[in-house]
Amino acid sequence: MEPFEIRHLGPDAADREAMLRRVGHTSLDALTDTALPDDITMSEPLELAPAASEAGIQAELQRMAAANHPGRAMIGLGYHGTLTPAVIRRTVLENPAWYTAYTPYQPEISQGRLEMLLTFQTVITDLTGLPSAGASLLDEGTAVAEAVGVARRKQRKGSVVLVDEGILPQSLAVLHTRARALGIEVVVTSDPLEGLQRHDAFAVVLQTPDADGSVRSVEELTTIAAKAHENDALVIAAADLLALTLLPAPASWGADIAVGSTQRFGVPLFYGGPHAGYIAVGEGMERQLPGRLVGLSQDRHGTPAFRLALQTREQHIRREKATSNICTAQVLLAVVAASYAVYHGPEGLRGIASDVARNARRLAAAITTAGHPLVSDTFFDTLTVHTQGAAPRYVRAARERGIHLRFVDLDHVGISVGEDATEADLAAVAAVFGGALTDAEAGSLGQPEREPGYLGHPVFHRYRSETEMMRYLRALADRDFALDKGMIPLGSCTMKLNPAAALEPISYPGFANLHPFVPAADAQGYAELIADLEAQLVAITGYDRVSLQPNAGSQGEFAGLMAVRSFHEANGQPERTVCLIPASAHGTNAASAAMAGMDVVVVKTAEDGSIDFEDLTAKIDKHADKLAVIMITYPSTHGVYEARVRELCELVHAAGGQVYVDGANLNALMGLAQPGKFGADVSHLNLHKTFAIPHGGGGPGVGPVAVREHLAPYLPNHPLVPDAGPVTSYGPISAAPYGSAGILPISYAFIAMMGPALREASQGAVLAANYVAARLSERYPILYTGEGGLVAHECIVDLRPLTKRTGVTVDDVAKRLIDYGFHAPTMSFPVAGTLMVEPTESESLAELDRFCEAMLSIADEAERVASGEWPADDNPLHNAPHTLAEVTADAWDHPYPRSLAAHPAGVKLGAVSTGARDRYWPAVARIDGAFGDRNLVCSCPPMDSYQ
Amino acid sequence: MEPFEIRHLGPDAADREAMLRRVGHTSLDALTDTALPDDITMSEPLELAPAASEAGIQAELQRMAAANHPGRAMIGLGYHGTLTPAVIRRTVLENPAWYTAYTPYQPEISQGRLEMLLTFQTVITDLTGLPSAGASLLDEGTAVAEAVGVARRKQRKGSVVLVDEGILPQSLAVLHTRARALGIEVVVTSDPLEGLQRHDAFAVVLQTPDADGSVRSVEELTTIAAKAHENDALVIAAADLLALTLLPAPASWGADIAVGSTQRFGVPLFYGGPHAGYIAVGEGMERQLPGRLVGLSQDRHGTPAFRLALQTREQHIRREKATSNICTAQVLLAVVAASYAVYHGPEGLRGIASDVARNARRLAAAITTAGHPLVSDTFFDTLTVHTQGAAPRYVRAARERGIHLRFVDLDHVGISVGEDATEADLAAVAAVFGGALTDAEAGSLGQPEREPGYLGHPVFHRYRSETEMMRYLRALADRDFALDKGMIPLGSCTMKLNPAAALEPISYPGFANLHPFVPAADAQGYAELIADLEAQLVAITGYDRVSLQPNAGSQGEFAGLMAVRSFHEANGQPERTVCLIPASAHGTNAASAAMAGMDVVVVKTAEDGSIDFEDLTAKIDKHADKLAVIMITYPSTHGVYEARVRELCELVHAAGGQVYVDGANLNALMGLAQPGKFGADVSHLNLHKTFAIPHGGGGPGVGPVAVREHLAPYLPNHPLVPDAGPVTSYGPISAAPYGSAGILPISYAFIAMMGPALREASQGAVLAANYVAARLSERYPILYTGEGGLVAHECIVDLRPLTKRTGVTVDDVAKRLIDYGFHAPTMSFPVAGTLMVEPTESESLAELDRFCEAMLSIADEAERVASGEWPADDNPLHNAPHTLAEVTADAWDHPYPRSLAAHPAGVKLGAVSTGARDRYWPAVARIDGAFGDRNLVCSCPPMDSYQ
Repeated sequence: MEPFEIRHLGPDAADREAMLRRVGHTSLDALTDTALPDDITMSEPLELAPAASEAGIQAELQRMAAANHPGRAMIGLGYHGTLTPAVIRRTVLENPAWYTAYTPYQPEISQGRLEMLLTFQTVITDLTGLPSAGASLLDEGTAVAEAVGVARRKQRKGSVVLVDEGILPQSLAVLHTRARALGIEVVVTSDPLEGLQRHDAFAVVLQTPDADGSVRSVEELTTIAAKAHENDALVIAAADLLALTLLPAPASWGADIAVGSTQRFGVPLFYGGPHAGYIAVGEGMERQLPGRLVGLSQDRHGTPAFRLALQTREQHIRREKATSNICTAQVLLAVVAASYAVYHGPEGLRGIASDVARNARRLAAAITTAGHPLVSDTFFDTLTVHTQGAAPRYVRAARERGIHLRFVDLDHVGISVGEDATEADLAAVAAVFGGALTDAEAGSLGQPEREPGYLGHPVFHRYRSETEMMRYLRALADRDFALDKGMIPLGSCTMKLNPAAALEPISYPGFANLHPFVPAADAQGYAELIADLEAQLVAITGYDRVSLQPNAGSQGEFAGLMAVRSFHEANGQPERTVCLIPASAHGTNAASAAMAGMDVVVVKTAEDGSIDFEDLTAKIDKHADKLAVIMITYPSTHGVYEARVRELCELVHAAGGQVYVDGANLNALMGLAQPGKFGADVSHLNLHKTFAIPHGGGGPGVGPVAVREHLAPYLPNHPLVPDAGPVTSYGPISAAPYGSAGILPISYAFIAMMGPALREASQGAVLAANYVAARLSERYPILYTGEGGLVAHECIVDLRPLTKRTGVTVDDVAKRLIDYGFHAPTMSFPVAGTLMVEPTESESLAELDRFCEAMLSIADEAERVASGEWPADDNPLHNAPHTLAEVTADAWDHPYPRSLAAHPAGVKLGAVSTGARDRYWPAVARIDGAFGDRNLVCSCPPMDSYQ
Repeated sequence: MEPFEIRHLGPDAADREAMLRRVGHTSLDALTDTALPDDITMSEPLELAPAASEAGIQAELQRMAAANHPGRAMIGLGYHGTLTPAVIRRTVLENPAWYTAYTPYQPEISQGRLEMLLTFQTVITDLTGLPSAGASLLDEGTAVAEAVGVARRKQRKGSVVLVDEGILPQSLAVLHTRARALGIEVVVTSDPLEGLQRHDAFAVVLQTPDADGSVRSVEELTTIAAKAHENDALVIAAADLLALTLLPAPASWGADIAVGSTQRFGVPLFYGGPHAGYIAVGEGMERQLPGRLVGLSQDRHGTPAFRLALQTREQHIRREKATSNICTAQVLLAVVAASYAVYHGPEGLRGIASDVARNARRLAAAITTAGHPLVSDTFFDTLTVHTQGAAPRYVRAARERGIHLRFVDLDHVGISVGEDATEADLAAVAAVFGGALTDAEAGSLGQPEREPGYLGHPVFHRYRSETEMMRYLRALADRDFALDKGMIPLGSCTMKLNPAAALEPISYPGFANLHPFVPAADAQGYAELIADLEAQLVAITGYDRVSLQPNAGSQGEFAGLMAVRSFHEANGQPERTVCLIPASAHGTNAASAAMAGMDVVVVKTAEDGSIDFEDLTAKIDKHADKLAVIMITYPSTHGVYEARVRELCELVHAAGGQVYVDGANLNALMGLAQPGKFGADVSHLNLHKTFAIPHGGGGPGVGPVAVREHLAPYLPNHPLVPDAGPVTSYGPISAAPYGSAGILPISYAFIAMMGPALREASQGAVLAANYVAARLSERYPILYTGEGGLVAHECIVDLRPLTKRTGVTVDDVAKRLIDYGFHAPTMSFPVAGTLMVEPTESESLAELDRFCEAMLSIADEAERVASGEWPADDNPLHNAPHTLAEVTADAWDHPYPRSLAAHPAGVKLGAVSTGARDRYWPAVARIDGAFGDRNLVCSCPPMDSYQ
């Protein structure tokens, strides 16, 4: 049968020949042999199993999924059984129109998911009572850590954070990791009031309900918050979102920040992730929010339009001064959670919460009647039962009935009731404890039930029928441009094929419904999958060990730098804290270094875009004793295979430093060169770039960290799952032991289906970039090239001469590309005034040509502006993108024809056909970013104001 | 948790109240109590299990699916293992944009699937070598029967059809059923040449490869064909489509007609269906083709555009003179098969066929070497092994290894190799026979391999990468209007919600991959599902027994009438052949009656649209001795609950006739009245109307036949599966024992999730229709109403006064509705010059209002034509639908503004938002039907000619 390779690679053999001719090489090998430095080139083929077929790998993954035993998960600890409505699973989670979209940096073509993200923010602000919420964080554990960071920046005092002992153990562990690097002291207390008395804390973290399920009375919470405020400390509530439909909003009792997980709003357990964490803050802290924030602005016609707000806070602008290193969010999961809220509405959510709470009370009655006391009789959904040393027996008995309970300790068993618990499940649990389920209830919420009144926006009331919901989800998807509409040639983002055969398995119940803290024996399928994927990544990168725990590239960077720091400390060199970073680096590198407590020193870029070796050696000399690590990207962020990378590694090693190679550009290296072999000590990889996990419209990502053996003792571990990492480590990076485990089948399947042909994938990526560079160089300079005048897998198109001559800006070109049916390339990174194009190996020659022709046509259009034919402020570039409303209006008073706005003649507008009928239309015209930042609106305004 | 009911019903409680106010009733019960005759109203609630939840029913269906044991199916007999490419499964089979579309009667908004259907026809014409192919038939068995019908009409001679004894047993059985009713004699022969000598046959049917896998030499085929032609008989080839990529095209050796199944082109086994059958015919027979035929025409601007061609052949026009009673096709499955051909292309298909053939030869070598002779040593994919009485042992041994072989008889075992057979499977089969698999091959194709050269059209060469395929499939879907875009208020079609939770289970491997002829012990899940669904339908209809075999409504009608005929014959009254049919009946009723060998007598319609009782009694009297049955629809096709239906039934029974109630309108009866209790003897149901199976863009459908006990002995059965029906019956209606078994989980889940609330569904449908009628009656007369001035679940909007006054036609209104973002209602049925609107219970009040406002706005527009403001031949109605190309062109020379064409002010254009951005645009303008029929092009013309 046909190998998967021919499905993954865009050009067929004949097209490949034509492309090679254009770039002047006779074969893929000749091309990459020329482009890559000889001293890093691999001599052996990749040591991967022969390529599997679609059917073969799915059979394999079905077998693995069957080796996981989800049963009914009643373990709790931040992960709860939930029911994903089928219409949301099918229309969002399994729909390429949603999951193949990119982060909404181009808001005009992202209005669908931006609307849903604003809805997500509204869910959070309404339920927490706090005025501003972000568009999701990576998980609850990192959200707690981020909140502590926000509080510290806000309060500018002390270094102690006080933490309620009822905090989720994994949140505490993540906080420890983060705090340690930043010199924050974490004090755990069973009595926050007393703790506030004893410590000059800048913040106190309260979990509600706590890990054991206990709910503090609102009086107690109010007292703690008042005391904290009196002491100039902020109050951070880590709150269960479903509980908040019944419990008082954290803001109402004095919380300043609220964080948590939105998993139980319809997102599968996924063995721990991906899930969307949330954060909400009080007034005056909006600009401190880490991660993405969606706000309302307006387009050039004054039409309300959504966009990412306050991006100036972020790491790509502020580098090491950024408030966080987070680049990505968990958009796809946030969309699911928001959809769940939209579909159920406030009454539905409250109904689910009430059912859960009532069932917990019924269980409490059955269990206490049978003679087992509870640790607390105020609870929402989670009971902790005193068992007098018999905990293992009860947990085992439940497991035999297909139910996972929480083994707290020898004396205690935890039982957490989710939306998915059936009457039979509840009866089985009661029976395990010798009780019988009745309608009787024991225990209470511990607080008077919250008044309804939240989620009053129409969006939470309009889509109650499945038909309406399906249409709403389709309409939103149709507003956005994703890979199913055309190429997204974003430099440094690797928007390649996300194969359906690799995506389908994440819905297998064995993968989707597993709780992260089930016994190891019930997660053998994941254990095998994880081991195999790690081995695949080792084979590809040449490193010795991989941890899959980091659930985003930023987290992988942080994990890698923590490994380096730990290594130096273990060697008695804690003073090694200098991190060299080239000027052209991703801002995230610097932000991660700062988070890891390192001092960033910038290395200059030479004329030709490469690292300035003179400056490098000078900086190494200057900081020799304190040198911890150099962070480079390879191929460089300039899209070139720098010739002297091996020499660079040797120089740094000679000075006692470690070499970190950012794996963002690994798509140019597979089967060609291995960082783990050419001198690097550590890398993070982006499974959502190189290894086919879709971008999800802005997350989830997976950022594994790969190291050589000497750093392996410092890979992340996990407090609850010993197999997840070495005991010698500093702790976890993510809340879940294997991060975004639920989407690992995608990368595993992708690698297995490609096998050693991954080399041809990288070669194809290099060929495509060089082909585009060759075609565009007719009209645009290609800023940097390496050996043989070649680029690596992406190229920087220099628009500055065009801008100078014609006044047409990068923005104009990017927005005009929308009119031609494209997502814009990366704008002004790493060099202002340029576009960075990464076509990937998956784009066909027809699509590459269509893109080149659009770019060349745009060059022609720019010349018509330069010639004065069109005014600088009224031409098709300046006015781009054009909306349907505009081009179908009665009036047309531009100096260029309407048809030129709508469908430039002679250029294909859609990936499939030439005609206007298949082109994509942006939902709004060009958006005024500054207006949005000045008039920040971060939750849903009245519907009528923007529709 | 919220009951599914609130997801299924469009209006919520408040909306329902508002609607009830508008129609002047205080409750749903008051409304339907008024509308329905008292003497048929149910007094008890539906005897159905309490409603299940989404999660509950999916758990149940997972359990049932696990009770089926697909293993590896190597049974053959027209059903073969195949690999559905994941991109096709996800993007077509599991995508509401494809599966919720209606039959492409409105070609302007159906260009996507029409393009794919033309591709389907091209696959068939290219591979068979015959010039014209239809857009799919229901299965191979009925395709054989239809082909025999075509041949008989063409040849106009004799009554004998000669059939090769190698024909698939189920095809022969279906042919027997059909032939018996029409007085055709089926002669089975082992020697067609000799048979032609002995019989004056009008046609000869040859299966190739035959059921045992044997392939006749091309010389032998040519000789038979020549002899047939000499004798003035046509040659019908029943040919395996995959084999045709290697074997000579049937046309090349003289076949006049070719039929078969396209299942193995990527369509799951589905326990027998749904699959798309095919038919292709030689020149001069196009107009005899049964079923759908897609052709190329052009729109009003001369743009090439696809449409259904030659509809004048069909039953809705020609009634009992139609060439077939088939209304529906198997569009969704034909789209899958065509997509499979597009994705693989000719080289890929040939590669798959070559692999299959080589593997069969390797198995042959292993088995013959082990000492087992084969029945034939010329074969493609199927071997029949002589086992000397040990067949049961070998079949059992294979089954123990998870492989299903064919038990032919005590001496013979059949082995059929599919695309899905792995090396391990083949080795296991070899081992069962004591052989070992090697690369050696034995046996041959029996014919020289066919030259490549088929499927030369660009569509079979452009979409080889998954990215390109995904975009192509999305672009086609985007051209079409389906339920995910807005309401499809087609009268008599019941375009209600197709719940995702009910759809998902059809992809469960236990349902999707089961061969229809596995041992009963391996199909226990289906057995349970089928029994439960039959019981549900019995509970709803009040009948005693149901057969799910008919795989379309038309087949259900035929099955029902055959039961009636058989009943009369068994009672010694074979002369009872008169079938009374009201003038307003579906044309299909008459066509089915003709197929069943009955004589149609039309009963007049009274002034008020009801059956004319005077004429009825006269006709009963006149034909009393010969009266077989009356076929009525209830509520009537006029959308009214006729008051005297019980009396009608009594009159017919008194005369010795049976009463057939067409179940097309059952959506107005659930929980309200039961045909099986108010006097009917037999009905067919449409699971794709009332019971939530999606229309698939024009199929699949399921048309169960439900009967009272006295007709139960005459429900269809099956030659290979004794459990499928009573031995007393006439035979099968469909090729597969349970028809379209693979989609039965949908209806089962739908009924289970609704439970007794199905009554509210029917009441909701009645309320919606009356609400629309009330609102539209402001401007349009509602043609017929019943008790209390109420309609049932649909209403006929009379446009004739408007047309008379303004010149605006039904067509103009229907096409203008597209501009407003709607699929048109049913046009000119059952009354010319009217629109029949069936909104269903699933549409929200917002969507119903949007529709009413569009209709009222259109009435205003029509008045502006009448007033002379706009010329009769240049106004927004006459020119509708408007395309994007038109409204974005530079020139606009119509007397009405461009904006009025594109987005009439004040009317919502999309189901979700008011703005232009979410509206649907037709791919082409109004299509010239007559042009297409005059210039019939039924396979893909060169790509450039229409894009």
